[in-house]
Amino acid sequence: MRNFIVPILFACSLPSLAVAQDKDSITLRKLADEVLTHSTAYENLRHLTKDIGGRLAGSPQMSKAEQWGVAALKAAGADTVYLQECMVPHWVRGAREEARIISKRRDFIPPLNVLALGNSVGSGPNGVTAGVLEVASFDELEAKKDQVKGKIVFYNVRFKPEYIKTFHSYGDAVKYRGQGASRAAKYGAVAVIVRSMSHGANNFPHTGAMGYDTAYPKIPAVAIGLEDADRLSLRLKDDTDAKVFLRTNCEMLKDVVGHNVIGELKGRKYPDQYITVGGHLDSWDVAEGAHDDGAGCVQSIEVLRALKAQGIQPEHTLRVVLFANEENGTRGGKKYAALAKAKKEQHVFALESDAGGFTPRGFMTTLPADKKAKMDSWKPLFAPYGIYDFDEQGGGVDVGQLNEAIGTPMAELSPDSQRYFDYHHAANDVFEAVNKRELELGAFGMAGLIYLVDQNF
Amino acid sequence: MRNFIVPILFACSLPSLAVAQDKDSITLRKLADEVLTHSTAYENLRHLTKDIGGRLAGSPQMSKAEQWGVAALKAAGADTVYLQECMVPHWVRGAREEARIISKRRDFIPPLNVLALGNSVGSGPNGVTAGVLEVASFDELEAKKDQVKGKIVFYNVRFKPEYIKTFHSYGDAVKYRGQGASRAAKYGAVAVIVRSMSHGANNFPHTGAMGYDTAYPKIPAVAIGLEDADRLSLRLKDDTDAKVFLRTNCEMLKDVVGHNVIGELKGRKYPDQYITVGGHLDSWDVAEGAHDDGAGCVQSIEVLRALKAQGIQPEHTLRVVLFANEENGTRGGKKYAALAKAKKEQHVFALESDAGGFTPRGFMTTLPADKKAKMDSWKPLFAPYGIYDFDEQGGGVDVGQLNEAIGTPMAELSPDSQRYFDYHHAANDVFEAVNKRELELGAFGMAGLIYLVDQNF
Repeated sequence: MRNFIVPILFACSLPSLAVAQDKDSITLRKLADEVLTHSTAYENLRHLTKDIGGRLAGSPQMSKAEQWGVAALKAAGADTVYLQECMVPHWVRGAREEARIISKRRDFIPPLNVLALGNSVGSGPNGVTAGVLEVASFDELEAKKDQVKGKIVFYNVRFKPEYIKTFHSYGDAVKYRGQGASRAAKYGAVAVIVRSMSHGANNFPHTGAMGYDTAYPKIPAVAIGLEDADRLSLRLKDDTDAKVFLRTNCEMLKDVVGHNVIGELKGRKYPDQYITVGGHLDSWDVAEGAHDDGAGCVQSIEVLRALKAQGIQPEHTLRVVLFANEENGTRGGKKYAALAKAKKEQHVFALESDAGGFTPRGFMTTLPADKKAKMDSWKPLFAPYGIYDFDEQGGGVDVGQLNEAIGTPMAELSPDSQRYFDYHHAANDVFEAVNKRELELGAFGMAGLIYLVDQNF
Repeated sequence: MRNFIVPILFACSLPSLAVAQDKDSITLRKLADEVLTHSTAYENLRHLTKDIGGRLAGSPQMSKAEQWGVAALKAAGADTVYLQECMVPHWVRGAREEARIISKRRDFIPPLNVLALGNSVGSGPNGVTAGVLEVASFDELEAKKDQVKGKIVFYNVRFKPEYIKTFHSYGDAVKYRGQGASRAAKYGAVAVIVRSMSHGANNFPHTGAMGYDTAYPKIPAVAIGLEDADRLSLRLKDDTDAKVFLRTNCEMLKDVVGHNVIGELKGRKYPDQYITVGGHLDSWDVAEGAHDDGAGCVQSIEVLRALKAQGIQPEHTLRVVLFANEENGTRGGKKYAALAKAKKEQHVFALESDAGGFTPRGFMTTLPADKKAKMDSWKPLFAPYGIYDFDEQGGGVDVGQLNEAIGTPMAELSPDSQRYFDYHHAANDVFEAVNKRELELGAFGMAGLIYLVDQNF
């Protein structure tokens, strides 16, 4: 019987599936036209990056960005806009870092281009002057642990070029930024210098969050530009008595009040069930936070604007969330998830964009098998837009909190990753580095996915 | 029987196919590692763009670029390098173009940013001053043909944002650049201004080739930047008596000698059968010709270098061809095809890269069905590298000549197209606009395809 039933099911289901796909295909085309011809994402990004700029948690720009977010969500057509309070860390860089090679030789040595890592302690006004131990891995650090005491440990770990998706290179290297200081402090190091996580053919240092293991002393930690990392490494081989002077002026102040900025479009059928789409509003202080993550914010706002402009009122309530403090605390994402759990909210799906405003290639997902199968069935709908890659596991740091807290199915926009780490957490992550159409195509992909999820999940 | 035979065929053929794909998969991974870690493409591009720059047919830079090509092919490991002579047109821009709005009003009006179109005639030293007829299509021109006499026709045709692949927008709009002058001269126009073919959020005019229909007078033709096109259009609506003054100083001189630059890697099994891979060495004079088509040249050279570095001697002779004069004559491509035909050379396949050094997404092809089916069977081999789109028809202007002359199967690298027309034929097509990894991934895709074609076609 089974062999008989299957063809009949096919015969019955195929036409209706075809009709549904045809209707969906038309809706996606309308959304694409809407975004590619009327998007406000690019101009929104210009305001956020050029008029406000870097907006680290606790900074005056954080508050300005929150006000901007409220206004942008209202302008996009949200029917409710509100702030969700959360305490955020308040780390300040202080005066610009200094680093230089100290040598007995009399040649001129240009200063080293470094940036204090986020959350790290300052060196004190006199700085740190010490010999340098260069290592290429934690294994090498362990092997040379007897040489660490009193030294600056220099993690000169190359960002691997062989990975095709650059996030895999990042996954490989980021532990030296995150844990490097305490791993070295354990053996008596006085500071660490970490090679920037980038393929970039330039000398921008790339900052980013680090954390301390409280079992060991907190020591200063900086990122160094790639050219200067190579220069320092070369110098150390030749000039074995050379030392490095390092001064950082950062400190962690008391937590302050920050906010997630939330805009809603009320659900037509299920107003008490939520679909979340968001990016994070904070960015590192040293740049404009254009790709990371101004892009994700303006794309999420554009999802709401485009749906509304096309007369599509979602069945579930759509929540656009501009998360606070992703960079050095994830407090916004955690707060959003904790409140959702406490209020027993029903969350159908959550989508994040936090991998840059580049040309979209697909979505990373964390979904139950039936929903993944459904999403895979939408591949033909996305193929005309160059969005085809649905196979990688993922979801994003902020909506990941919701997934962890209450199991919400989630996805993250997966843009082409080749250029992301040229800009990530560095001073060149500016508005001009974002291409209007690439940003818009990503926003379209998100709008299309939200539309389909709303209809089918 | 049929139901029985099919599984048996599968049982026999699957393992050997699997073994072949496994071996091929390993070879492609080696080629990717080779290109991503040791490529000389980016440094080659730096030399070509920064040390030589714009290199239009007939210019002194054309000769310098030819010498560079010979040296680069030798350095990449070609066993034979030679020049193939061809006559090329010699169009010169002369002094920089001027254009401005002439009004009876006394307000300050900034000059219009224009560039003479390639092959166009100059206006003469006194320039042209005339009223302007703006049209949005040839249909509108025909409808208003009685108003054309003595006017400058302004083709203000928007580069359509709705197409996902930007080359489709180009295909839609380029006829106004190519034929606009003669279509307007037919009705007595004295010059034409063509809105640049670009989505770019800036004011760069984008030049490009045009041609004259000899039945009508040759009139000056310029491209105008997008912001100035909007400004001119707005002004004309309001200030209906406004005229435009236009002076171009270009002229077509006598043909001169140019060259295709060719490097070969002798075939192991079939030395008299050729696989061609190439880009064009010439570029417009106003930029560095980085994406168009320095990228295609250095990628083609990298194919040879990577194969040789990995110890892969092709079965057929590999010819890297840096074509002369694609931009305003295609004389290099035509000469190469004419000689191949005259010498009765056997050409197995030809691959071009002339769509920018952006992250690769696939290949456009013009292939007989059996070869297309074979190429489709390689999709799983390319999927890990984000190269998945083999469905569009195409091949490239230069290798297209070979296809036309002797039916050679052909393909063209299909990079992501979103940014291409931001730079195309404009002053911002410079080295810095090319991302090293995107360039390299394209070169890898080409090397992988050449390897598979060499083994299987």
